[in-house]
Amino acid sequence: MTVQYRLLSLLRDSGPLSRAELSDRLEVPRPRLLAELDRLIEAGRVLEAGPAASRGGRRSTLVELDPRVRFAAVDLGASSVDIEITDGRLAPVASYAEPCDIRSGPTVVLDRVVEILGKLRAQGHFSQLDALGIGVPGPVSFRDGVPVSPPIMPGWDRYPVRSQLARELGCPVVVDNDVNVMTLGEHHSGVARTAADLLFVKIGSGIGCGVQVHGEIYRGAEGCAGDIGHIQIEPGGPVCSCGNAGCLEAFFGGVALVRDATAAARTGQSPALAERLTGNGVLTAKDVADCAAAGDVACNNLIRAGGRRVGQVLAGLVSFMNPSMIVIGGGLSGLGHALLAEIRGVVYSRSLPLATGNLPIVMSELGPRAGVTGAALLASELAYGGFS
Amino acid sequence: MTVQYRLLSLLRDSGPLSRAELSDRLEVPRPRLLAELDRLIEAGRVLEAGPAASRGGRRSTLVELDPRVRFAAVDLGASSVDIEITDGRLAPVASYAEPCDIRSGPTVVLDRVVEILGKLRAQGHFSQLDALGIGVPGPVSFRDGVPVSPPIMPGWDRYPVRSQLARELGCPVVVDNDVNVMTLGEHHSGVARTAADLLFVKIGSGIGCGVQVHGEIYRGAEGCAGDIGHIQIEPGGPVCSCGNAGCLEAFFGGVALVRDATAAARTGQSPALAERLTGNGVLTAKDVADCAAAGDVACNNLIRAGGRRVGQVLAGLVSFMNPSMIVIGGGLSGLGHALLAEIRGVVYSRSLPLATGNLPIVMSELGPRAGVTGAALLASELAYGGFS
Repeated sequence: MTVQYRLLSLLRDSGPLSRAELSDRLEVPRPRLLAELDRLIEAGRVLEAGPAASRGGRRSTLVELDPRVRFAAVDLGASSVDIEITDGRLAPVASYAEPCDIRSGPTVVLDRVVEILGKLRAQGHFSQLDALGIGVPGPVSFRDGVPVSPPIMPGWDRYPVRSQLARELGCPVVVDNDVNVMTLGEHHSGVARTAADLLFVKIGSGIGCGVQVHGEIYRGAEGCAGDIGHIQIEPGGPVCSCGNAGCLEAFFGGVALVRDATAAARTGQSPALAERLTGNGVLTAKDVADCAAAGDVACNNLIRAGGRRVGQVLAGLVSFMNPSMIVIGGGLSGLGHALLAEIRGVVYSRSLPLATGNLPIVMSELGPRAGVTGAALLASELAYGGFS
Repeated sequence: MTVQYRLLSLLRDSGPLSRAELSDRLEVPRPRLLAELDRLIEAGRVLEAGPAASRGGRRSTLVELDPRVRFAAVDLGASSVDIEITDGRLAPVASYAEPCDIRSGPTVVLDRVVEILGKLRAQGHFSQLDALGIGVPGPVSFRDGVPVSPPIMPGWDRYPVRSQLARELGCPVVVDNDVNVMTLGEHHSGVARTAADLLFVKIGSGIGCGVQVHGEIYRGAEGCAGDIGHIQIEPGGPVCSCGNAGCLEAFFGGVALVRDATAAARTGQSPALAERLTGNGVLTAKDVADCAAAGDVACNNLIRAGGRRVGQVLAGLVSFMNPSMIVIGGGLSGLGHALLAEIRGVVYSRSLPLATGNLPIVMSELGPRAGVTGAALLASELAYGGFS
């Protein structure tokens, strides 16, 4: 890693520091550090920020990132887009979200992203972006900045997401899988700060997993590592959208939960769900969570059964990977502690004791902000030279 | 990586080279390279080896590793010990194998290893070892050089394998899990030379897996990554030695195969096995392989069922990890192509197409020599400075 990257990312993560503190923490020879700092001040990327507290010797001056630095973070889901503008320290300065069907295809979706960013610019949140990070709900060639054979994104296969956004916005762009982006966010700013070998399990409409090894995202030979939603858990199970039978996603995740909740409402197993179905015409995962919280037995059973299925897959992955932490995120993590308790129960009883002895299994701390946080981090890594 | 390590490992992997070739291939400034080379020649680790072929300019001299360099490679299995003495280029100069029950405990087993090495020394295969690498059949703290809670190695938990062998043999020692060692061997000298993200599946008495990520062994938070033998594949399955039910090892592996073969002999399902059981009193995996090759249906079915079970676990791991190659090794890989065909069939039909499109699933090229090859490689890495 270059001195420039180490210096800029330290100022990003620590805030204003004196030259003496920078020199101590980076363990770079002082003349080399000062030369690099002068270069960054000259280029306007770093500013003087007033006197530092005295350490007894010559008074030192604080330096900080240029407060006008702006990153854009875009989290594209199957049915939503979340956008955040951050400063150079990744603090949000504006955010925006709206429904968005990824199946509309790249032209419609990316035009809308550019349009939203135009509005945020017009509102004065930035004048020029320093970089943009974007997560998309499918496998990505990180090197090429394009989705690769994404199953739920018709029309996006090898679409030049990176080059098109870079051209239209006039800033460098980095593209990654949405779950990888959430994993990065949770590792940098959430509950997983100290976890080197991490599994981040996103339970949304479907189920995916971010894999972090030695503090770095592991993407796999073709960029599709972490696709745990299609691991088979029961050969005779329900048919999955992928064409195989008995996949984890065929049992649990937002789509399966709504299917099972609707059945429970129609068969009278859950009077509470039946009432909501009559009232609203459709059911959502939130209905199941609400009814479970109000004591509905069938809803509690659905959540617990789902947790056991997720736990069953994770138990195998823990034996295989021996991670230092598992984080549960995504929309369905809102189902709460009954879900977590079942996952823990299966993993702790099924995996090798040595692998689970020190293994925390916890809920995401960033929740719905994990994606934009990770996308902003990726943008900053790109701008500060972390990928060069 | 230091220049010394890069230089010595290049001479290990390429054989004698001229100074000009070394300089070209290492991309190190020539004065720095020549200084390092002089230092290594002075220390007796590298020797002049005659004139190089002319490249048109000034005649260059070949240099090579001191031919007296000796590494010891020890592969401890559940029931055997394999030892190889190699030169600095990892070419075998002597090898020795005998049955050895790991359950005899560390004192008995390590004393025997030292005794065998003493005999090999007395036979003139070496006078002093430069380093020793040893693989053991259980989880290892690579940093501490000790086994950690190894399930089939009573008495070995945190036993100071590294420090005891180093003291008794007077050379540096490196300890690793046996399957990791086989993975290293297959990657360095076998079929997996070009695979960066690799699964090496050892099917022996039990089943384990070596995990290589970006060309490096991944050991997990507690050193027990790759323990796939205890992934549950059928909740109602047979009880496993670990106490859980339905683990992969409860269905397949040497122990399970002998159990099922004995049952097939006793029930008359397999006349060929019944004959061998009567003749020998016991059955082995080799009996199953021989009878299958001779056309026994029950034996073929046992092999195919085992392959499907292994494939079932690997299908999930391929979706999770998206490796660039899978290698099947260990004693039961001798069951041959029926086993491999079943594994392939399940993985190729069950995993995400993107993850299997370019995924070779192949038999180990080194076979029973994978362990000692990897242990010798580890020893050389230690001696040449690859871990510093």
